[in-house]
Amino acid sequence: MKMLSVIGIGAGDPEHLTIQAVKALNRLDVVFLMDKGPAKDKLLDLRREICRRYIVDRTYRFVEADSPARQRGDLDYKDSVEALNRAKQATFERLIDEELSDGQRGGFLVWGDPALYDSTVRILQAILDAGRCVFEFEVIPGITSVQALAARHKVPLNSIGGALEITTGRRLAAGQVGDAASMVVMLDAEDAYRQVSDPDTQIYWGAYVGTPDEILIAGRLGDVADDIERTRKAAREANGWIMDTYLLRKPQ
Amino acid sequence: MKMLSVIGIGAGDPEHLTIQAVKALNRLDVVFLMDKGPAKDKLLDLRREICRRYIVDRTYRFVEADSPARQRGDLDYKDSVEALNRAKQATFERLIDEELSDGQRGGFLVWGDPALYDSTVRILQAILDAGRCVFEFEVIPGITSVQALAARHKVPLNSIGGALEITTGRRLAAGQVGDAASMVVMLDAEDAYRQVSDPDTQIYWGAYVGTPDEILIAGRLGDVADDIERTRKAAREANGWIMDTYLLRKPQ
Repeated sequence: MKMLSVIGIGAGDPEHLTIQAVKALNRLDVVFLMDKGPAKDKLLDLRREICRRYIVDRTYRFVEADSPARQRGDLDYKDSVEALNRAKQATFERLIDEELSDGQRGGFLVWGDPALYDSTVRILQAILDAGRCVFEFEVIPGITSVQALAARHKVPLNSIGGALEITTGRRLAAGQVGDAASMVVMLDAEDAYRQVSDPDTQIYWGAYVGTPDEILIAGRLGDVADDIERTRKAAREANGWIMDTYLLRKPQ
Repeated sequence: MKMLSVIGIGAGDPEHLTIQAVKALNRLDVVFLMDKGPAKDKLLDLRREICRRYIVDRTYRFVEADSPARQRGDLDYKDSVEALNRAKQATFERLIDEELSDGQRGGFLVWGDPALYDSTVRILQAILDAGRCVFEFEVIPGITSVQALAARHKVPLNSIGGALEITTGRRLAAGQVGDAASMVVMLDAEDAYRQVSDPDTQIYWGAYVGTPDEILIAGRLGDVADDIERTRKAAREANGWIMDTYLLRKPQ
């Protein structure tokens, strides 16, 4: 039997790794690297650093694979993600087929937690459901950027007894959000916090949280929105990419 | 200056601790223990085991404090939690005042993540705001039972591009929930999944996730709701307490 581990490696700080994740890394024969886009080199370096730091007395190899990119343009978002996942599925199948022998274990190192806005688990399950490939897999949770953000701002995510909605910039921009007292927005390419009508909303924003490049801004949305927009634009230009998240809390 | 660390220690598996949390434990002079209720002995044992396992070559001491209990009955939920937090605030102030010297660091070990359904951060901030006590504090994120649940069931929390609502059994039972495609319910004392009208909803339920007592049940709500109700009742009776969580996913 071939074996796979989907390992959450946290939000950018190598010390986010759990003991469970470190142990899982130390069972790997192959580490798959599939980064892409403008942050590719930085993300690859961080993964290699994590392996170098935590894998001890074990022979393993890296396998780099070209990760397909999402088609933008005509397709709607969900269709484009589904098309991307089918392309990724073919890539994953090839990797499992060609790069792993029976009894070997391959690892996918996932930023944040594999359960939150990541496709690896969904793709592996689809491959098993299709029945063309047989393997066992395990999932190791990891610290998300949401948790790193709350920890760095030293704030709770939920109000007392209140609900928390975790959603995307796309959904917030489209007004497709619920009534939860607290909302976390991820994957926001469009400054969607600009769509929030109440200027008394509290915002806790962070970019590159947990890394040496970390930037944090918090305050009343009406007071700090301009500052956040300026800061994220400048950071994106300086670094070539940005990874940011924010918590919105309704006024009491 | 006195210093405090609020350390997320995960959902019950000592291997959920992050490297960051292990390092934070190794800076502590005092570990505060404030468990209460029917699970008190089990939770105290787990905290002691975590300290024994991960704190190396460092002298530290445990300080047990009676943790106030929430008043049930007349008060509404939010009022009772706020009253509890004021009582806890007095306890925390006394601990910081009497049990820590300047330059020493005290630690609160929080189940799951300090940002999700835990009051420690809110209480420390309230003490600072009141200005009667001066200290610095840091927050270290931890794996939540939500993440442990998703990892053990090997499922994503969100649908593609969809939102996730994290809420309480109390809110679900009261119908105070939004329209997110995925919902995680915590702190459910009332089998609130019984309130979900669509029997085609998928449920992924888990109790004591990540511990040797772990129980997992997943399926179509209409098929497994009875089984979950029976199982959680029996587990609560056998153990004297239950800690469970579930993910509800709307049918496609």
